[in-house]
Amino acid sequence: MIRVTIYNENIHDKLDHIKAVYPNGMHGAIKECLEADGRVTVNVVTLDMPECGITDELLANTDVLFWWGHAGHEKVPDSVVDRVQKRVLEGMGLVVLHSGHFSKIFKRLMGTGCNLKWRESGDKERIWITSPSHPIAAGLPESFVLPKEETYGEHFDIPNPDEVVFTSWFSGGEVFRSGCCFLRGNGKIFYFRPGHETFPTFFDENVRKVLVNAALWAAEDRGVFQTYGHYPSPETGLLN
Amino acid sequence: MIRVTIYNENIHDKLDHIKAVYPNGMHGAIKECLEADGRVTVNVVTLDMPECGITDELLANTDVLFWWGHAGHEKVPDSVVDRVQKRVLEGMGLVVLHSGHFSKIFKRLMGTGCNLKWRESGDKERIWITSPSHPIAAGLPESFVLPKEETYGEHFDIPNPDEVVFTSWFSGGEVFRSGCCFLRGNGKIFYFRPGHETFPTFFDENVRKVLVNAALWAAEDRGVFQTYGHYPSPETGLLN
Amino acid sequence: MIRVTIYNENIHDKLDHIKAVYPNGMHGAIKECLEADGRVTVNVVTLDMPECGITDELLANTDVLFWWGHAGHEKVPDSVVDRVQKRVLEGMGLVVLHSGHFSKIFKRLMGTGCNLKWRESGDKERIWITSPSHPIAAGLPESFVLPKEETYGEHFDIPNPDEVVFTSWFSGGEVFRSGCCFLRGNGKIFYFRPGHETFPTFFDENVRKVLVNAALWAAEDRGVFQTYGHYPSPETGLLN
Amino acid sequence: MIRVTIYNENIHDKLDHIKAVYPNGMHGAIKECLEADGRVTVNVVTLDMPECGITDELLANTDVLFWWGHAGHEKVPDSVVDRVQKRVLEGMGLVVLHSGHFSKIFKRLMGTGCNLKWRESGDKERIWITSPSHPIAAGLPESFVLPKEETYGEHFDIPNPDEVVFTSWFSGGEVFRSGCCFLRGNGKIFYFRPGHETFPTFFDENVRKVLVNAALWAAEDRGVFQTYGHYPSPETGLLN
Repeated sequence: MIRVTIYNENIHDKLDHIKAVYPNGMHGAIKECLEADGRVTVNVVTLDMPECGITDELLANTDVLFWWGHAGHEKVPDSVVDRVQKRVLEGMGLVVLHSGHFSKIFKRLMGTGCNLKWRESGDKERIWITSPSHPIAAGLPESFVLPKEETYGEHFDIPNPDEVVFTSWFSGGEVFRSGCCFLRGNGKIFYFRPGHETFPTFFDENVRKVLVNAALWAAEDRGVFQTYGHYPSPETGLLN
Repeated sequence: MIRVTIYNENIHDKLDHIKAVYPNGMHGAIKECLEADGRVTVNVVTLDMPECGITDELLANTDVLFWWGHAGHEKVPDSVVDRVQKRVLEGMGLVVLHSGHFSKIFKRLMGTGCNLKWRESGDKERIWITSPSHPIAAGLPESFVLPKEETYGEHFDIPNPDEVVFTSWFSGGEVFRSGCCFLRGNGKIFYFRPGHETFPTFFDENVRKVLVNAALWAAEDRGVFQTYGHYPSPETGLLN
Repeated sequence: MIRVTIYNENIHDKLDHIKAVYPNGMHGAIKECLEADGRVTVNVVTLDMPECGITDELLANTDVLFWWGHAGHEKVPDSVVDRVQKRVLEGMGLVVLHSGHFSKIFKRLMGTGCNLKWRESGDKERIWITSPSHPIAAGLPESFVLPKEETYGEHFDIPNPDEVVFTSWFSGGEVFRSGCCFLRGNGKIFYFRPGHETFPTFFDENVRKVLVNAALWAAEDRGVFQTYGHYPSPETGLLN
Repeated sequence: MIRVTIYNENIHDKLDHIKAVYPNGMHGAIKECLEADGRVTVNVVTLDMPECGITDELLANTDVLFWWGHAGHEKVPDSVVDRVQKRVLEGMGLVVLHSGHFSKIFKRLMGTGCNLKWRESGDKERIWITSPSHPIAAGLPESFVLPKEETYGEHFDIPNPDEVVFTSWFSGGEVFRSGCCFLRGNGKIFYFRPGHETFPTFFDENVRKVLVNAALWAAEDRGVFQTYGHYPSPETGLLN
């Protein structure tokens, strides 16, 4: 079983108009979707827990961490960010959702500003698959529609992704690299664009396939143990 | 079960000094190694079979094609190369070994000259893992040695690989990108450098892990069905 | 001065309704735009010339070859394609325009099917810059519009580009990687999507900046001379 | 003229056995080399200056920042690192030398551990060009030798570079990606491996060509101005 931890800051989720969309919070919808697959167990942690619930022990027992945040990015302590970065480089997967593009942990791992254009005008989003052999695209049609979503537009200020699985079209005129894979250390990172709190995106059948596929993909850690630091010559044995 | 076909031109393999190294041909050694894994079935075809044994029917029933060739590159008919290229783009995996860098099918899929420096002075080769989280590196130490191999040296005239899993060091002074992954259409291609006919490379324990890992990796085809050609607007339904 | 050769098959250009858009052919519009820059000299060759006008001598004196073809792709002799490929790998730049995605030379250099979705419904195209520091984007606004163009849609069956400078949005619902850079051998290749014969695209101010920028970028060949083939050890001098 | 600033922490450079190699400090050798090109002006700043000499005003007047650090990495204030990162993302070039792989600014921009294997046994280093058409390789032979250098070995824990210009061979058995290009925001970053303080590497003729080429390459900023944040639909003008 793949051990997933979902971090949701759980701020918007307490508002009535969001509860109307996500009665159990966005984390509830994501948890239900992942567990329904049968290959995944899920823990949920939130911003209001001590250390955001993200202890060293939890991370040691997490194969993939999902991350949704927005209003509370700055409230996540740097010590938690340090800890998550370390674990990703060791091999834990990380799936960053929607406004998580501006989270401390995503910016930390990217090294760039991670900025973009945005607008809440209820555009239609059409998501095209631009890397058809990628495991995260398994089982999807060649494009699918979210009737209303927040719009994100390029330029998305990230390093060139190792693979771009999805590219979005918005009715308002924008395009966006919506499914981006990054390899960092032994860890795999997937950024997935959709998931605004005011829309029922995490109940969409295709989005749910993406979430499951992403968990399976990011969980894979065939990382070879690497020695770093002072190292003897493999030819002569000399160390100095 | 993953269905592997091994193409070996089987020219050198008939010479006495090569038989001393590979009593059942290089294809025999590779077949035995893959079958021992338990997840793979293997067919062998050779240059002297009609159409090199590579019919449309065979390809339709092949998940991954392994390719070893050298002296007989020019004898492979273009019609066979066309057929293999088409199947790779549809999603079949291709594992190209050693001197297969100069095969028609590899040059066809790369679009470049695929040239390199070479020398048969019996250099020691040390293979380092440069992409530790890659499935083809699973179970390997951070470097391993082949006591004697043919030397290949950069510049290797290929497109930038999608991932470089291995980089070789040679005692004679060269470096080489020895494990290169390429995505083409729905297909996955892996080039693996070692495997000169005069050395028992395909009996090496680490090389055998690479061969099995490469078969498993290249077999994965989660390819979304893609429509090409004249296509109606998904927004308006207009075709013209 | 950068020596550009424009190959235009010059078939559509002879029809009255195309002449109404391009009185001097598409090659005439492109030539005028490049020469106006002052750093470029231009030769034009067409399909009806012996060997398409593309002789070894011409290629030896060409820094960048522009290519527009559609109806006459199959009429370009393979010997000409061989010659152009060889020269690109030696360091000549190649700028492939619009329907040139299906030319023999582009498919040869890519190794893939180069297929896509298309439609002539007069969609609006909006071109976004997705690699803002790239020389081909110099002087452009962050997006620009072509009021009517042929629509191309993903999946575009090419290898992962070395850089994606432009991504297009179409009013009909598609997205497309419209400006793709590929390094092959010592040569630089740029694919640029717009340029359908029925629209005055090659008179558009922003497109003309792209054409000039692409000529300057693709002309750069700082290629180190590379030795290939049998090569003595740089450590011991041994050749065998 | 390209405006280069060289940051050298200038700690080792004050020791007698280093002065014997670099009478004017490593910064002196690098400055002399860049100025000799005639297209570059050079400022030098050091760790012991207020704010390491790296003020907003200096950065606003710097096209490319060279960075050599080792013993003093932790003494560079985070506020200086913030400032440099911001300027790189805006378009300033950054050339990181040797032990600068462990500087705060490089780790910040990479998002990874940037660790590696190392040894001071005086190995011979042979540097091969693995991207022959890259401007940083201009004028170099296909390989060149540094008779003695500190050894660095893979795995080098960095994101996949946008381009790998050099790969090193060491007599002790290691390989290393020694010339790595990264695009981040509008900025260009070049990591160059050689340059240990105890060896006269910065006087080597080929290394000096690399330094000049790197300054010219990293200085290029054709960055399109990008709007980020709340953005109206280019189709409808709607902002909400």
